[in-house]
Amino acid sequence: MTTTSKRRVFNFSAGPAVLPVPVLEQAREEFLSYADAGASVLEISHRGGPFVDILATTKQRLIDLLKIPESHELLFLQGGSRLQFSMVPMNLLRGQPQPADYILTGSWGQMAAAEARREGPVRVAWDGGATDYDRWPASEALKLTSGAAYVHFTSNETIQGVQFPSEPNVGTSPLVCDASSDFLGRPLPVEQYGLIYACAQKNAGPAGVTVVIIRKDLLERCSADLPGYCNYKSHVDNDSCYNTPPTFGVYLVGLVAKWLQEDVGGLAAMLQRNQQQARLLYDVIDQSDGFYAGHAQRRSRSLMNVIFRLPNDELQRKFIDQAAEHQLCNLKGHRSVGGIRASIYNAMPLEGVQTLCEMMVQFQKQYA
Amino acid sequence: MTTTSKRRVFNFSAGPAVLPVPVLEQAREEFLSYADAGASVLEISHRGGPFVDILATTKQRLIDLLKIPESHELLFLQGGSRLQFSMVPMNLLRGQPQPADYILTGSWGQMAAAEARREGPVRVAWDGGATDYDRWPASEALKLTSGAAYVHFTSNETIQGVQFPSEPNVGTSPLVCDASSDFLGRPLPVEQYGLIYACAQKNAGPAGVTVVIIRKDLLERCSADLPGYCNYKSHVDNDSCYNTPPTFGVYLVGLVAKWLQEDVGGLAAMLQRNQQQARLLYDVIDQSDGFYAGHAQRRSRSLMNVIFRLPNDELQRKFIDQAAEHQLCNLKGHRSVGGIRASIYNAMPLEGVQTLCEMMVQFQKQYA
Repeated sequence: MTTTSKRRVFNFSAGPAVLPVPVLEQAREEFLSYADAGASVLEISHRGGPFVDILATTKQRLIDLLKIPESHELLFLQGGSRLQFSMVPMNLLRGQPQPADYILTGSWGQMAAAEARREGPVRVAWDGGATDYDRWPASEALKLTSGAAYVHFTSNETIQGVQFPSEPNVGTSPLVCDASSDFLGRPLPVEQYGLIYACAQKNAGPAGVTVVIIRKDLLERCSADLPGYCNYKSHVDNDSCYNTPPTFGVYLVGLVAKWLQEDVGGLAAMLQRNQQQARLLYDVIDQSDGFYAGHAQRRSRSLMNVIFRLPNDELQRKFIDQAAEHQLCNLKGHRSVGGIRASIYNAMPLEGVQTLCEMMVQFQKQYA
Repeated sequence: MTTTSKRRVFNFSAGPAVLPVPVLEQAREEFLSYADAGASVLEISHRGGPFVDILATTKQRLIDLLKIPESHELLFLQGGSRLQFSMVPMNLLRGQPQPADYILTGSWGQMAAAEARREGPVRVAWDGGATDYDRWPASEALKLTSGAAYVHFTSNETIQGVQFPSEPNVGTSPLVCDASSDFLGRPLPVEQYGLIYACAQKNAGPAGVTVVIIRKDLLERCSADLPGYCNYKSHVDNDSCYNTPPTFGVYLVGLVAKWLQEDVGGLAAMLQRNQQQARLLYDVIDQSDGFYAGHAQRRSRSLMNVIFRLPNDELQRKFIDQAAEHQLCNLKGHRSVGGIRASIYNAMPLEGVQTLCEMMVQFQKQYA
């Protein structure tokens, strides 16, 4: 069966999400027998040569793409961002003299803060709830704790479609970021961060792998009393093989990184492509005379998740049905916000965005 | 590329380990476009119809195979057995009046007990260390705590090759089992268990999925103070979608379960096949006049991991080299025990075991 012999839709899912076709094709090509291993990547030991190579290559590709400095460690874990919501405060808040500050720009930040409160004192440095999480805060609006254990923010909120265009200015406290939904979508000044975590299933790979980048000096905070799996030090000391890593997922992250390097040309080029594709959609929204109403303020708009509403629920249902006829799938907004969500992660082809834009213009002509 | 166009070796890896070829072939066939989804299983939302179906089907297949009663819940988690080493005591030991009992028949049981000690009081009910972990204990040898929070054992120790042929008799305390390395290798009387956990990468699927079966009444012990991801109740209340599950891994577990049902004919048939294949290897060992020295006592021998030594390290190295010439791979014993380890999980073809047996007989003739 060739790639094109079976239908592939334009998949606007918020995650797990579309992956680059060359990545899927290479993985399929070597699915039963990887390189010289004589076995599938799914079947090989995490201690054996072939996987040790995969792990090292994948790490190096991410180090090169993100320019991760020597001061930071790169890990592949399991448990998604949810487990990171707990691991971050377990490791970095317990035993610290000052609370952790959380900047809340949407649902995921709220959930991260709720988990952190189980582990220690948390202060909300800013909460966008008053305007229904439609923006990120100006630095002067942040109420930061002097000497905070760390300051946490969510670089992109997938449900509200709010994205920080750059890092908030938080002074000298370690900056911690849930970068799950825009990781690898743009360059990152990693040296400014204490810790970055990202589940892979948006831009970086499949569900089941979580990338963590941690500044080495913060490892001193990780108490030996923590559950072994929940201790960052366990994983750093064993180069992500404290236990069996999600081997196939790591391999796919490596293929995605290769695609970013070789096909896209790096993260600056990726950002440019993402800006271009997002602009096409936001232009249709902005030129719709309010027929399509975006959720986020203009300057806070996400390049990854374009959230908008139609005049009423009936039109929204019709929109989703008509979109499906054009092979534009998984556009329904998150149940907590409603409306339409077009997730346009790295691997969304331009043709998918263009087809959606054309359909939106037509739909408005038909129903406005 | 067809399946046979590229070399596949006989893969005796202890895990991640060999998978059934029909499972790999089906996964490859639908790798870029699953059923009517128009996308790879790797790309589809865990909330959408196609994955909801995969999850439900996979659950039902395991329920049917294992005859899991209504009294128990079945979960798909991440973090491997390592995270379970902590989650079991976090959920079932905290706040209980009596300690947890651990039966130690090898390295994994030791590690499980070490993690449990961080969470609460632990008693060792039996420790096979005096005879270098070569056996399981008679029930009368167990020093059980009356009213223990639970009793933990490791049904199969992959490093020492020691397997319980049936459940230890522990009275009324909930029985908790690390079944990672023989799960789905034989029928299990699930109703006798409080909790069973198994990372998938031996018999059940790829690394990155952990199956947990928990008796519903034990969920009352799960404190709301636990980290969200570490609380079994979070996962039960959300049918394994508290967070994004490892979707592709769950799908592969489902394909393995289908293979067990349709190609093998269920777990009793699987056990028979495993017994037959293990017997072939143990017969060679037993008829070698001590040239091959098995680690475990006869009645404690594992059907999954056949551990033996040759007269000296040089012969062991030669053995591994000669085996590789016959496409018999990944036979080196665990670094803590040395020697040879032939892991013959469910998916190891009879031909692989036969080839190894023939090579062992030849090798002895050559070097004894």
